Amino acid sequence: MSSAYIQVEHDGASDTVAVEEPLEIRIDAQPLAVTMRTPGHDEELALGFLYGEGLIDGPRDVGLTEDFAANTVEVRGPLTREPGERRFYTTSSCGVCGKGALEEVAVHSGPLPDGPAVVRSLVADLPNRLEQPAFEHTGGVHATGLFTADGVLLHSREDVGRHNAMDKVVGRALLDGIVPLGERILCVSGRLSFELVQKAAVAGAPILVGVGAPSSLAISLAEDRGLTLCGFARRGRMNVYTHPQRILEG
Amino acid sequence: MSSAYIQVEHDGASDTVAVEEPLEIRIDAQPLAVTMRTPGHDEELALGFLYGEGLIDGPRDVGLTEDFAANTVEVRGPLTREPGERRFYTTSSCGVCGKGALEEVAVHSGPLPDGPAVVRSLVADLPNRLEQPAFEHTGGVHATGLFTADGVLLHSREDVGRHNAMDKVVGRALLDGIVPLGERILCVSGRLSFELVQKAAVAGAPILVGVGAPSSLAISLAEDRGLTLCGFARRGRMNVYTHPQRILEG
Repeated sequence: MSSAYIQVEHDGASDTVAVEEPLEIRIDAQPLAVTMRTPGHDEELALGFLYGEGLIDGPRDVGLTEDFAANTVEVRGPLTREPGERRFYTTSSCGVCGKGALEEVAVHSGPLPDGPAVVRSLVADLPNRLEQPAFEHTGGVHATGLFTADGVLLHSREDVGRHNAMDKVVGRALLDGIVPLGERILCVSGRLSFELVQKAAVAGAPILVGVGAPSSLAISLAEDRGLTLCGFARRGRMNVYTHPQRILEG
Repeated sequence: MSSAYIQVEHDGASDTVAVEEPLEIRIDAQPLAVTMRTPGHDEELALGFLYGEGLIDGPRDVGLTEDFAANTVEVRGPLTREPGERRFYTTSSCGVCGKGALEEVAVHSGPLPDGPAVVRSLVADLPNRLEQPAFEHTGGVHATGLFTADGVLLHSREDVGRHNAMDKVVGRALLDGIVPLGERILCVSGRLSFELVQKAAVAGAPILVGVGAPSSLAISLAEDRGLTLCGFARRGRMNVYTHPQRILEG
Protein backbone atom coordinates (compact mmCIF):
# COMPACT_ATOMS: atom_id res chain seq x y z
CA MET A 1 0.00 0.00 0.00
CA SER A 2 1.30 3.43 -0.95
CA SER A 3 2.06 5.93 1.76
CA ALA A 4 0.10 9.15 2.17
CA TYR A 5 3.35 11.09 2.16
CA ILE A 6 6.91 10.80 0.85
CA GLN A 7 10.29 12.39 1.39
CA VAL A 8 11.63 14.84 -1.22
CA GLU A 9 14.92 16.71 -1.46
CA HIS A 10 15.06 20.48 -1.90
CA ASP A 11 17.50 23.26 -1.11
CA GLY A 12 19.95 20.60 0.02
CA ALA A 13 17.50 19.48 2.72
CA SER A 14 14.71 16.93 3.03
CA ASP A 15 10.98 17.56 3.29
CA THR A 16 7.85 15.44 3.59
CA VAL A 17 5.10 16.08 1.04
CA ALA A 18 1.61 14.68 0.60
CA VAL A 19 1.16 12.15 -2.19
CA GLU A 20 -1.25 13.14 -4.95
CA GLU A 21 -2.09 10.55 -7.62
CA PRO A 22 -5.00 10.05 -10.00
CA LEU A 23 -7.58 7.39 -9.17
CA GLU A 24 -9.83 6.21 -11.94
CA ILE A 25 -13.26 4.94 -10.92
CA ARG A 26 -14.57 2.56 -13.56
CA ILE A 27 -18.13 1.23 -13.93
CA ASP A 28 -18.37 -2.10 -15.74
CA ALA A 29 -15.00 -1.42 -17.43
CA GLN A 30 -15.99 2.10 -18.55
CA PRO A 31 -14.23 5.14 -17.05
CA LEU A 32 -16.62 7.15 -14.87
CA ALA A 33 -14.39 9.53 -12.92
CA VAL A 34 -10.78 10.44 -12.32
CA THR A 35 -9.99 12.07 -9.03
CA MET A 36 -6.64 13.43 -7.90
CA ARG A 37 -6.37 11.90 -4.46
CA THR A 38 -3.99 10.79 -1.74
CA PRO A 39 -3.66 6.99 -2.04
CA GLY A 40 -5.27 4.87 0.66
CA HIS A 41 -8.89 4.02 1.48
CA ASP A 42 -9.67 4.02 -2.22
CA GLU A 43 -12.62 1.68 -1.81
CA GLU A 44 -14.15 4.04 0.75
CA LEU A 45 -13.46 6.96 -1.59
CA ALA A 46 -15.22 5.25 -4.49
CA LEU A 47 -18.22 4.25 -2.35
CA GLY A 48 -18.55 7.69 -0.80
CA PHE A 49 -18.27 9.35 -4.19
CA LEU A 50 -20.91 7.12 -5.78
CA TYR A 51 -23.24 7.60 -2.81
CA GLY A 52 -22.80 11.36 -2.80
CA GLU A 53 -23.68 11.41 -6.49
CA GLY A 54 -26.84 9.42 -5.87
CA LEU A 55 -25.52 6.54 -8.02
CA ILE A 56 -25.80 3.87 -5.30
CA ASP A 57 -28.05 3.42 -2.29
CA GLY A 58 -25.58 1.43 -0.21
CA PRO A 59 -22.31 -0.50 -0.21
CA ARG A 60 -23.97 -3.80 -1.09
CA ASP A 61 -25.41 -2.47 -4.32
CA VAL A 62 -22.15 -2.91 -6.17
CA GLY A 63 -18.98 -4.96 -6.19
CA LEU A 64 -15.61 -3.24 -5.99
CA THR A 65 -12.18 -4.40 -7.13
CA GLU A 66 -9.27 -2.19 -6.20
CA ASP A 67 -6.05 -2.26 -8.21
CA PHE A 68 -3.65 -0.19 -6.18
CA ALA A 69 -0.77 -0.44 -8.66
CA ALA A 70 -2.94 0.74 -11.53
CA ASN A 71 -4.69 3.45 -9.47
CA THR A 72 -8.12 2.13 -10.40
CA VAL A 73 -11.25 1.00 -8.63
CA GLU A 74 -13.50 -1.18 -10.76
CA VAL A 75 -17.19 -1.05 -9.85
CA ARG A 76 -19.59 -3.76 -10.98
CA GLY A 77 -23.10 -2.41 -11.27
CA PRO A 78 -25.90 -1.99 -11.73
CA LEU A 79 -26.05 1.52 -10.34
CA THR A 80 -29.18 2.92 -8.74
CA ARG A 81 -29.44 5.34 -11.60
CA GLU A 82 -27.58 5.76 -14.86
CA PRO A 83 -24.81 8.34 -14.97
CA GLY A 84 -25.97 8.75 -18.56
CA GLU A 85 -23.64 10.65 -20.79
CA ARG A 86 -21.79 12.15 -17.90
CA ARG A 87 -18.05 11.80 -17.82
CA PHE A 88 -16.76 12.61 -14.37
CA TYR A 89 -13.32 14.00 -13.78
CA THR A 90 -12.79 14.95 -10.20
CA THR A 91 -9.66 16.68 -9.08
CA SER A 92 -8.00 17.04 -5.73
CA SER A 93 -10.71 19.35 -4.52
CA CYS A 94 -13.58 18.46 -6.78
CA GLY A 95 -16.63 16.57 -5.71
CA VAL A 96 -18.93 16.13 -8.64
CA CYS A 97 -18.06 16.22 -12.28
CA GLY A 98 -19.71 15.83 -15.60
CA LYS A 99 -22.98 17.59 -15.03
CA GLY A 100 -23.91 19.71 -17.95
CA ALA A 101 -26.63 21.98 -16.67
CA LEU A 102 -26.93 24.37 -13.76
CA GLU A 103 -30.14 22.80 -12.57
CA GLU A 104 -28.32 19.51 -12.16
CA VAL A 105 -25.74 20.88 -9.76
CA ALA A 106 -27.72 19.85 -6.71
CA VAL A 107 -28.04 16.15 -5.92
CA HIS A 108 -31.35 15.16 -4.35
CA SER A 109 -31.35 14.43 -0.63
CA GLY A 110 -34.22 13.78 1.73
CA PRO A 111 -35.11 15.85 4.78
CA LEU A 112 -32.69 15.66 7.69
CA PRO A 113 -33.89 14.41 11.10
CA ASP A 114 -34.09 16.58 14.20
CA GLY A 115 -30.77 15.01 15.17
CA PRO A 116 -28.84 15.70 18.34
CA ALA A 117 -28.69 18.96 20.29
CA VAL A 118 -25.07 19.63 21.21
CA VAL A 119 -23.39 22.18 23.45
CA ARG A 120 -21.69 24.92 21.44
CA SER A 121 -18.30 24.58 23.10
CA LEU A 122 -18.22 20.86 22.32
CA VAL A 123 -18.93 21.38 18.61
CA ALA A 124 -16.38 24.19 18.41
CA ASP A 125 -13.77 21.85 19.89
CA LEU A 126 -14.23 19.05 17.33
CA PRO A 127 -11.50 20.30 14.94
CA ASN A 128 -9.01 19.74 17.76
CA ARG A 129 -10.14 16.13 17.94
CA LEU A 130 -9.48 15.33 14.27
CA GLU A 131 -6.64 12.87 13.69
CA GLN A 132 -4.29 14.44 11.15
CA PRO A 133 -1.03 12.52 11.00
CA ALA A 134 -0.42 13.28 7.31
CA PHE A 135 -1.07 16.99 7.90
CA GLU A 136 1.38 17.01 10.77
CA HIS A 137 4.04 15.62 8.44
CA THR A 138 3.24 17.63 5.32
CA GLY A 139 0.95 20.61 5.97
CA GLY A 140 -0.60 19.65 2.66
CA VAL A 141 -3.79 17.66 3.24
CA HIS A 142 -7.36 18.23 4.38
CA ALA A 143 -9.16 16.13 6.96
CA THR A 144 -12.75 15.10 7.65
CA GLY A 145 -13.91 13.39 10.83
CA LEU A 146 -17.13 11.68 11.86
CA PHE A 147 -18.12 12.23 15.49
CA THR A 148 -20.83 11.04 17.84
CA ALA A 149 -23.06 13.65 19.48
CA ASP A 150 -20.82 13.22 22.56
CA GLY A 151 -17.80 14.37 20.58
CA VAL A 152 -16.19 10.94 20.23
CA LEU A 153 -14.27 10.50 16.97
CA LEU A 154 -15.52 7.45 15.04
CA HIS A 155 -13.08 7.80 12.16
CA SER A 156 -11.03 10.45 10.41
CA ARG A 157 -9.61 10.57 6.87
CA GLU A 158 -7.07 12.84 5.15
CA ASP A 159 -6.58 13.70 1.48
CA VAL A 160 -5.07 16.40 -0.74
CA GLY A 161 -8.67 16.95 -1.85
CA ARG A 162 -11.13 18.00 0.80
CA HIS A 163 -14.01 16.39 -1.09
CA ASN A 164 -12.08 13.15 -1.16
CA ALA A 165 -11.57 13.22 2.60
CA MET A 166 -15.35 13.64 2.99
CA ASP A 167 -16.07 10.86 0.49
CA LYS A 168 -13.73 8.51 2.36
CA VAL A 169 -15.45 9.20 5.66
CA VAL A 170 -18.90 8.63 4.16
CA GLY A 171 -17.64 5.50 2.40
CA ARG A 172 -16.32 4.13 5.69
CA ALA A 173 -19.65 4.88 7.35
CA LEU A 174 -21.45 3.09 4.52
CA LEU A 175 -19.29 -0.01 5.08
CA ASP A 176 -20.02 0.24 8.81
CA GLY A 177 -23.75 0.37 8.09
CA ILE A 178 -24.32 3.67 9.91
CA VAL A 179 -25.63 5.79 7.00
CA PRO A 180 -27.81 7.90 7.20
CA LEU A 181 -25.73 9.67 9.83
CA GLY A 182 -28.77 11.03 11.68
CA GLU A 183 -27.18 11.30 15.15
CA ARG A 184 -23.62 12.11 14.09
CA ILE A 185 -21.60 15.22 13.35
CA LEU A 186 -19.23 15.78 10.40
CA CYS A 187 -16.22 18.05 10.88
CA VAL A 188 -13.83 19.33 8.19
CA SER A 189 -10.42 20.99 8.55
CA GLY A 190 -10.99 23.67 5.92
CA ARG A 191 -13.54 25.87 4.23
CA LEU A 192 -17.19 25.00 3.77
CA SER A 193 -18.19 24.85 0.11
CA PHE A 194 -21.49 24.04 -1.55
CA GLU A 195 -20.28 20.55 -2.32
CA LEU A 196 -19.27 19.65 1.20
CA VAL A 197 -22.71 20.69 2.44
CA GLN A 198 -24.28 18.63 -0.33
CA LYS A 199 -22.26 15.53 0.58
CA ALA A 200 -23.12 15.92 4.26
CA ALA A 201 -26.83 16.36 3.48
CA VAL A 202 -26.92 13.34 1.16
CA ALA A 203 -25.24 11.28 3.90
CA GLY A 204 -27.94 12.45 6.32
CA ALA A 205 -25.66 14.32 8.74
CA PRO A 206 -27.63 17.08 10.52
CA ILE A 207 -24.57 19.05 11.70
CA LEU A 208 -21.50 20.06 9.65
CA VAL A 209 -18.72 22.06 11.28
CA GLY A 210 -15.60 23.49 9.63
CA VAL A 211 -12.49 25.35 10.64
CA GLY A 212 -12.81 27.71 7.69
CA ALA A 213 -15.29 30.08 6.12
CA PRO A 214 -18.55 29.05 4.46
CA SER A 215 -19.50 30.25 0.99
CA SER A 216 -22.81 31.93 0.25
CA LEU A 217 -24.09 28.86 -1.59
CA ALA A 218 -23.01 26.55 1.22
CA ILE A 219 -25.18 28.59 3.57
CA SER A 220 -28.11 28.64 1.14
CA LEU A 221 -28.02 24.87 0.64
CA ALA A 222 -27.66 24.19 4.37
CA GLU A 223 -30.65 26.47 5.05
CA ASP A 224 -32.68 24.69 2.40
CA ARG A 225 -31.81 21.16 3.52
CA GLY A 226 -32.27 21.81 7.24
CA LEU A 227 -28.58 21.29 8.05
CA THR A 228 -26.86 23.09 10.93
CA LEU A 229 -23.76 24.73 9.41
CA CYS A 230 -21.00 25.94 11.74
CA GLY A 231 -17.91 27.79 10.46
CA PHE A 232 -14.71 29.31 11.80
CA ALA A 233 -14.56 26.72 14.58
CA ARG A 234 -11.34 27.81 16.26
CA ARG A 235 -10.14 28.26 19.79
CA GLY A 236 -13.42 27.10 21.27
CA ARG A 237 -15.56 29.56 19.30
CA MET A 238 -17.58 29.27 16.11
CA ASN A 239 -20.30 30.88 14.01
CA VAL A 240 -23.61 29.07 13.51
CA TYR A 241 -24.98 30.09 10.10
CA THR A 242 -28.11 27.94 9.78
CA HIS A 243 -30.58 25.97 11.91
CA PRO A 244 -29.11 26.86 15.31
CA GLN A 245 -31.77 24.82 17.14
CA ARG A 246 -29.28 21.92 17.37
CA ILE A 247 -26.68 24.05 19.15
CA LEU A 248 -27.12 24.54 22.89
CA GLU A 249 -25.56 27.55 24.59
CA GLY A 250 -23.55 26.90 27.70
CA MET B 1 -22.48 43.05 -11.52
CA SER B 2 -22.68 40.75 -8.51
CA SER B 3 -20.42 41.32 -5.59
CA ALA B 4 -17.70 38.89 -4.56
CA TYR B 5 -19.08 38.87 -1.04
CA ILE B 6 -22.35 39.43 0.79
CA GLN B 7 -23.58 40.05 4.32
CA VAL B 8 -25.30 37.23 6.21
CA GLU B 9 -26.89 37.11 9.65
CA HIS B 10 -25.91 34.51 12.22
CA ASP B 11 -25.95 34.20 16.01
CA GLY B 12 -27.70 37.56 16.12
CA ALA B 13 -24.72 39.20 14.43
CA SER B 14 -23.64 39.96 10.86
CA ASP B 15 -20.84 38.38 8.86
CA THR B 16 -19.40 38.78 5.38
CA VAL B 17 -19.12 35.61 3.28
CA ALA B 18 -17.69 34.90 -0.16
CA VAL B 19 -20.19 34.40 -2.95
CA GLU B 20 -20.15 30.98 -4.63
CA GLU B 21 -22.35 30.46 -7.69
CA PRO B 22 -22.27 28.07 -10.62
CA LEU B 23 -21.03 29.36 -13.97
CA GLU B 24 -21.88 27.34 -17.03
CA ILE B 25 -19.46 27.61 -19.94
CA ARG B 26 -21.25 26.77 -23.18
CA ILE B 27 -19.71 26.07 -26.58
CA ASP B 28 -22.01 26.79 -29.51
CA ALA B 29 -25.04 26.45 -27.24
CA GLN B 30 -23.89 23.11 -25.78
CA PRO B 31 -22.89 22.87 -22.10
CA LEU B 32 -19.14 22.26 -21.74
CA ALA B 33 -18.39 22.93 -18.09
CA VAL B 34 -19.96 24.11 -14.87
CA THR B 35 -17.65 25.65 -12.33
CA MET B 36 -18.56 26.80 -8.85
CA ARG B 37 -16.99 30.23 -8.79
CA THR B 38 -17.09 33.68 -7.24
CA PRO B 39 -18.88 35.97 -9.72
CA GLY B 40 -16.81 38.56 -11.53
CA HIS B 41 -14.25 38.34 -14.33
CA ASP B 42 -16.24 35.48 -15.85
CA GLU B 43 -14.91 36.13 -19.34
CA GLU B 44 -11.35 35.87 -18.05
CA LEU B 45 -12.30 32.69 -16.21
CA ALA B 46 -13.74 31.11 -19.34
CA LEU B 47 -10.75 32.12 -21.48
CA GLY B 48 -8.23 30.92 -18.93
CA PHE B 49 -10.08 27.64 -18.48
CA LEU B 50 -10.28 26.96 -22.22
CA TYR B 51 -6.61 27.87 -22.67
CA GLY B 52 -5.51 25.67 -19.78
CA GLU B 53 -7.40 22.79 -21.32
CA GLY B 54 -5.69 23.30 -24.67
CA LEU B 55 -9.04 24.09 -26.31
CA ILE B 56 -8.01 27.53 -27.61
CA ASP B 57 -4.69 29.08 -28.65
CA GLY B 58 -5.62 32.65 -27.80
CA PRO B 59 -8.42 35.06 -26.93
CA ARG B 60 -9.18 35.91 -30.54
CA ASP B 61 -9.93 32.32 -31.48
CA VAL B 62 -13.43 32.52 -30.08
CA GLY B 63 -16.23 34.94 -29.37
CA LEU B 64 -17.62 35.25 -25.86
CA THR B 65 -21.01 36.42 -24.65
CA GLU B 66 -21.45 36.77 -20.92
CA ASP B 67 -24.89 36.59 -19.32
CA PHE B 68 -24.31 37.59 -15.74
CA ALA B 69 -27.92 37.12 -14.65
CA ALA B 70 -28.03 33.60 -16.05
CA ASN B 71 -24.53 32.68 -14.82
CA THR B 72 -23.44 31.60 -18.28
CA VAL B 73 -20.64 32.38 -20.71
CA GLU B 74 -21.44 31.45 -24.29
CA VAL B 75 -18.41 30.64 -26.45
CA ARG B 76 -18.63 30.66 -30.23
CA GLY B 77 -16.07 28.33 -31.74
CA PRO B 78 -14.41 26.71 -33.48
CA LEU B 79 -12.11 25.42 -30.76
CA THR B 80 -8.50 24.49 -31.47
CA ARG B 81 -9.36 20.91 -30.74
CA GLU B 82 -12.60 19.12 -30.07
CA PRO B 83 -13.53 18.45 -26.46
CA GLY B 84 -15.02 15.27 -27.92
CA GLU B 85 -17.28 13.37 -25.62
CA ARG B 86 -15.99 15.13 -22.59
CA ARG B 87 -18.44 16.79 -20.28
CA PHE B 88 -16.66 19.12 -17.94
CA TYR B 89 -17.97 19.91 -14.52
CA THR B 90 -15.58 21.98 -12.54
CA THR B 91 -16.22 22.81 -8.96
CA SER B 92 -14.89 25.49 -6.71
CA SER B 93 -11.47 23.89 -6.63
CA CYS B 94 -11.51 21.83 -9.77
CA GLY B 95 -9.52 22.62 -12.85
CA VAL B 96 -10.16 20.03 -15.49
CA CYS B 97 -13.11 17.75 -15.80
CA GLY B 98 -14.41 15.06 -18.07
CA LYS B 99 -11.25 13.21 -18.95
CA GLY B 100 -11.83 9.52 -18.89
CA ALA B 101 -8.36 8.02 -18.78
CA LEU B 102 -5.38 8.47 -16.53
CA GLU B 103 -3.05 9.12 -19.43
CA GLU B 104 -5.18 12.09 -20.38
CA VAL B 105 -4.78 13.83 -17.06
CA ALA B 106 -1.85 15.90 -18.25
CA VAL B 107 -2.48 18.62 -20.83
CA HIS B 108 0.32 19.13 -23.33
CA SER B 109 2.57 22.13 -22.83
CA GLY B 110 5.74 23.13 -24.59
CA PRO B 111 9.14 23.61 -22.95
CA LEU B 112 9.48 26.61 -20.67
CA PRO B 113 12.08 29.31 -21.42
CA ASP B 114 15.08 30.03 -19.21
CA GLY B 115 13.04 32.89 -17.81
CA PRO B 116 14.19 35.35 -15.21
CA ALA B 117 16.57 34.71 -12.33
CA VAL B 118 15.14 36.26 -9.19
CA VAL B 119 16.48 36.83 -5.69
CA ARG B 120 15.04 34.34 -3.20
CA SER B 121 13.86 36.94 -0.70
CA LEU B 122 11.91 38.76 -3.43
CA VAL B 123 10.08 35.62 -4.53
CA ALA B 124 9.33 34.66 -0.93
CA ASP B 125 7.79 38.10 -0.39
CA LEU B 126 5.35 37.91 -3.32
CA PRO B 127 2.44 36.48 -1.26
CA ASN B 128 2.52 39.70 0.78
CA ARG B 129 2.05 41.66 -2.42
CA LEU B 130 -1.13 39.87 -3.51
CA GLU B 131 -4.23 42.04 -3.44
CA GLN B 132 -6.87 40.17 -1.47
CA PRO B 133 -9.78 42.47 -0.62
CA ALA B 134 -12.38 39.66 -0.67
CA PHE B 135 -10.20 37.50 1.59
CA GLU B 136 -9.83 40.37 4.03
CA HIS B 137 -13.63 40.61 4.22
CA THR B 138 -14.47 36.90 4.25
CA GLY B 139 -11.46 34.67 4.93
CA GLY B 140 -13.06 32.41 2.35
CA VAL B 141 -11.33 32.89 -1.02
CA HIS B 142 -8.08 32.00 -2.73
CA ALA B 143 -5.95 34.44 -4.70
CA THR B 144 -3.57 34.24 -7.64
CA GLY B 145 -1.30 37.08 -8.74
CA LEU B 146 0.82 37.69 -11.82
CA PHE B 147 4.11 39.48 -11.14
CA THR B 148 6.99 40.86 -13.15
CA ALA B 149 10.48 39.55 -12.40
CA ASP B 150 10.95 42.75 -10.37
CA GLY B 151 8.10 41.77 -8.08
CA VAL B 152 5.57 44.26 -9.46
CA LEU B 153 1.99 42.99 -9.35
CA LEU B 154 0.38 43.10 -12.80
CA HIS B 155 -2.99 41.78 -11.69
CA SER B 156 -4.54 39.68 -8.96
CA ARG B 157 -7.77 37.69 -8.85
CA GLU B 158 -9.73 36.00 -6.05
CA ASP B 159 -12.18 33.13 -6.10
CA VAL B 160 -13.67 30.46 -3.83
CA GLY B 161 -11.87 28.03 -6.16
CA ARG B 162 -8.12 28.30 -6.38
CA HIS B 163 -8.15 26.95 -9.94
CA ASN B 164 -10.64 29.62 -10.90
CA ALA B 165 -8.40 32.36 -9.49
CA MET B 166 -5.55 30.99 -11.63
CA ASP B 167 -7.79 30.73 -14.71
CA LYS B 168 -8.91 34.35 -14.26
CA VAL B 169 -5.32 35.57 -14.06
CA VAL B 170 -4.33 33.63 -17.17
CA GLY B 171 -7.47 34.82 -18.96
CA ARG B 172 -6.61 38.45 -18.12
CA ALA B 173 -3.07 37.89 -19.42
CA LEU B 174 -4.48 36.40 -22.63
CA LEU B 175 -6.63 39.50 -23.15
CA ASP B 176 -3.56 41.65 -22.48
CA GLY B 177 -1.59 39.70 -25.09
CA ILE B 178 1.21 38.68 -22.71
CA VAL B 179 0.87 34.88 -22.90
CA PRO B 180 3.16 32.90 -22.87
CA LEU B 181 4.25 34.37 -19.54
CA GLY B 182 7.95 33.71 -20.14
CA GLU B 183 9.35 36.51 -17.95
CA ARG B 184 6.64 36.57 -15.30
CA ILE B 185 5.99 34.86 -11.98
CA LEU B 186 2.70 33.35 -10.80
CA CYS B 187 1.91 33.37 -7.08
CA VAL B 188 -0.96 31.59 -5.30
CA SER B 189 -2.28 32.05 -1.78
CA GLY B 190 -2.72 28.35 -1.02
CA ARG B 191 -1.42 24.88 -1.67
CA LEU B 192 0.31 23.77 -4.84
CA SER B 193 -1.57 20.97 -6.59
CA PHE B 194 -0.85 19.12 -9.83
CA GLU B 195 -3.43 21.21 -11.62
CA LEU B 196 -2.04 24.58 -10.62
CA VAL B 197 1.39 23.52 -11.89
CA GLN B 198 -0.24 22.32 -15.10
CA LYS B 199 -2.05 25.61 -15.64
CA ALA B 200 1.13 27.60 -14.96
CA ALA B 201 3.13 25.43 -17.36
CA VAL B 202 0.52 25.66 -20.12
CA ALA B 203 0.54 29.46 -19.69
CA GLY B 204 4.33 29.41 -20.05
CA ALA B 205 5.20 30.75 -16.59
CA PRO B 206 8.63 29.53 -15.52
CA ILE B 207 8.20 30.23 -11.78
CA LEU B 208 5.23 29.32 -9.57
CA VAL B 209 5.26 30.21 -5.90
CA GLY B 210 2.68 29.32 -3.25
CA VAL B 211 2.03 30.01 0.41
CA GLY B 212 1.12 26.37 1.02
CA ALA B 213 2.53 22.90 0.57
CA PRO B 214 3.13 21.21 -2.78
CA SER B 215 1.84 17.72 -3.51
CA SER B 216 4.09 14.93 -4.78
CA LEU B 217 2.55 15.12 -8.25
CA ALA B 218 2.89 18.90 -8.37
CA ILE B 219 6.62 18.45 -7.79
CA SER B 220 6.89 15.66 -10.39
CA LEU B 221 5.12 17.72 -13.04
CA ALA B 222 7.15 20.85 -12.27
CA GLU B 223 10.36 18.79 -12.53
CA ASP B 224 9.22 17.33 -15.85
CA ARG B 225 8.13 20.64 -17.39
CA GLY B 226 11.16 22.61 -16.25
CA LEU B 227 9.15 24.85 -13.92
CA THR B 228 10.63 26.35 -10.74
CA LEU B 229 8.22 25.41 -7.93
CA CYS B 230 8.46 27.27 -4.62
CA GLY B 231 6.30 26.36 -1.61
CA PHE B 232 5.69 27.50 1.95
CA ALA B 233 6.51 31.10 1.01
CA ARG B 234 5.95 32.77 4.37
CA ARG B 235 7.72 35.35 6.46
CA GLY B 236 10.42 35.91 3.85
CA ARG B 237 11.34 32.22 3.57
CA MET B 238 10.40 29.46 1.16
CA ASN B 239 11.33 26.01 -0.13
CA VAL B 240 12.47 25.59 -3.75
CA TYR B 241 11.42 22.11 -4.86
CA THR B 242 12.44 22.07 -8.54
CA HIS B 243 14.72 23.86 -10.99
CA PRO B 244 16.40 26.20 -8.49
CA GLN B 245 18.59 27.76 -11.20
CA ARG B 246 16.08 30.63 -11.47
CA ILE B 247 16.39 31.48 -7.77
CA LEU B 248 19.36 33.60 -6.71
CA GLU B 249 20.61 33.46 -3.14
CA GLY B 250 21.17 36.76 -1.39
